Amino acid sequence: MRFTKVQGLGNDFILADYIEEKFIPDDFPGIAVKACDRHFGIGADGLVPLLTSEVADIKMRIFNSDGSEAEMCGNVIRCAAKYLFEHGIVRKNKIKVETLAGIMIPELIIENERVSMIRVDMGEPRLQRSEIPMEGPPGKVVNEPLEAGGIIYNVTAVSMGNPHCVIFVPDVEQIPLQTAGPLLEKHHLFPCKTNVEFVQVDNQDEVYMRVWERGAGETMACGTGACAAAVASAINGYTRRQLSVRLKAGVLFIEWAANNHIYMTGPAEEVFTGDYPIFNY
Amino acid sequence: MRFTKVQGLGNDFILADYIEEKFIPDDFPGIAVKACDRHFGIGADGLVPLLTSEVADIKMRIFNSDGSEAEMCGNVIRCAAKYLFEHGIVRKNKIKVETLAGIMIPELIIENERVSMIRVDMGEPRLQRSEIPMEGPPGKVVNEPLEAGGIIYNVTAVSMGNPHCVIFVPDVEQIPLQTAGPLLEKHHLFPCKTNVEFVQVDNQDEVYMRVWERGAGETMACGTGACAAAVASAINGYTRRQLSVRLKAGVLFIEWAANNHIYMTGPAEEVFTGDYPIFNY
Repeated sequence: MRFTKVQGLGNDFILADYIEEKFIPDDFPGIAVKACDRHFGIGADGLVPLLTSEVADIKMRIFNSDGSEAEMCGNVIRCAAKYLFEHGIVRKNKIKVETLAGIMIPELIIENERVSMIRVDMGEPRLQRSEIPMEGPPGKVVNEPLEAGGIIYNVTAVSMGNPHCVIFVPDVEQIPLQTAGPLLEKHHLFPCKTNVEFVQVDNQDEVYMRVWERGAGETMACGTGACAAAVASAINGYTRRQLSVRLKAGVLFIEWAANNHIYMTGPAEEVFTGDYPIFNY
Repeated sequence: MRFTKVQGLGNDFILADYIEEKFIPDDFPGIAVKACDRHFGIGADGLVPLLTSEVADIKMRIFNSDGSEAEMCGNVIRCAAKYLFEHGIVRKNKIKVETLAGIMIPELIIENERVSMIRVDMGEPRLQRSEIPMEGPPGKVVNEPLEAGGIIYNVTAVSMGNPHCVIFVPDVEQIPLQTAGPLLEKHHLFPCKTNVEFVQVDNQDEVYMRVWERGAGETMACGTGACAAAVASAINGYTRRQLSVRLKAGVLFIEWAANNHIYMTGPAEEVFTGDYPIFNY
């Protein structure tokens, strides 16, 4: 079947468009494992079937390369929204997308009939220690000392539906992330483990971040991590509530709005289209 | 332009068929770098333009993911031969392929109009030091000590049209290939750099190999590397001249025949076809 390979900040996905298809495969997890293999398959971080929805414009499912299903992913939804608009499937600048995390409504920024950027409501940050979750007395965790591997880190904890531990440093390039990342990810104070962001404040409108993703190690970009870094930067008074978060793979613009929601604006790109026989099995 | 993604033992390539095309791009190295990127491009170990030849059925060029050009690659030529036969471009069971390492003649083993395995005459191994090329006094390089990064390796050098440095070890899984590989690849005694094979002898009919490919890093399989490993195993008296070389991604059967030619038999597979806009630039 035909597919379209897309990427958002280097996080890459196989969009499989089943909207007009009569035959929907049963075994998306099995197809994801085969199709996402980077040497024996198409190669991607995930498989994203697009399906008809009874409650939104479209339904989207996200299968990771190990076959597990993800509730939501900011990079995927930007790519899917761009695809749906540019291929004339949903010609709206606000597209209702049904996901396992509820209905998401990405907004398209359109220039000359092309989608230049996509803005996604990432929901509200949660800051109470128990909401991260992180062990310790009640209250927020802001610039609090935490020992790992003999080093004291000052951490700010933010949940964006998943846990984040944000640490401000003068120069993120100097951080030995391969050693510090796992120690913090699996620190005993984070019972569900945590994502780890090292953040360098460039000025009150811009930060630079490196991320260690829970279960994945250092990645080139993490949407929820960028949101957490922005929230932590604002809480600590280092930046405004609207700022650019630079990552290895590009820039995300994050707004912490008056309604307490976090809006993330970023790019998406269609890389190539193809035919993959496994979809016919 | 249309491309076909193929793999031989997990070594994966983008076949770009320019046989009927009038416009041939100048910048294959640049296209290779972009197209081979596994997150921002198609993703592959190499880009393989198929071109018309004045001296053979077809001409094949091989560009690694870093843009450098390879003389020959056994995995590529098996995949290309299968593609040429099954797509009706060359309907012969011996196909003459022009490469930078000379004319290769893969033989197809055909079952029900499909190519099941491909046997490739990989030519004659060259063993003189100057033929590798490797600096030092005249003669063969067999089990000779070589220092890299403070460690002494005993190396056997073989050219299969490209340079190989073969090192026998008791357990290839224990080798820190990410550190040892680059040090040996770029060792000053190899003026054209070298591929590096760590080989564990299981018995006189079988070896197990891990390979660090020049310009590509660790790969799951390397055809010329398997030939070099077989030649080195036989020279050192560890195996017979016909043996199976196990690699991470499967098995190649190598014969060092009485005519001094090396014959390699192995599989190839077409994975998917696609359209990639960069080829039109």
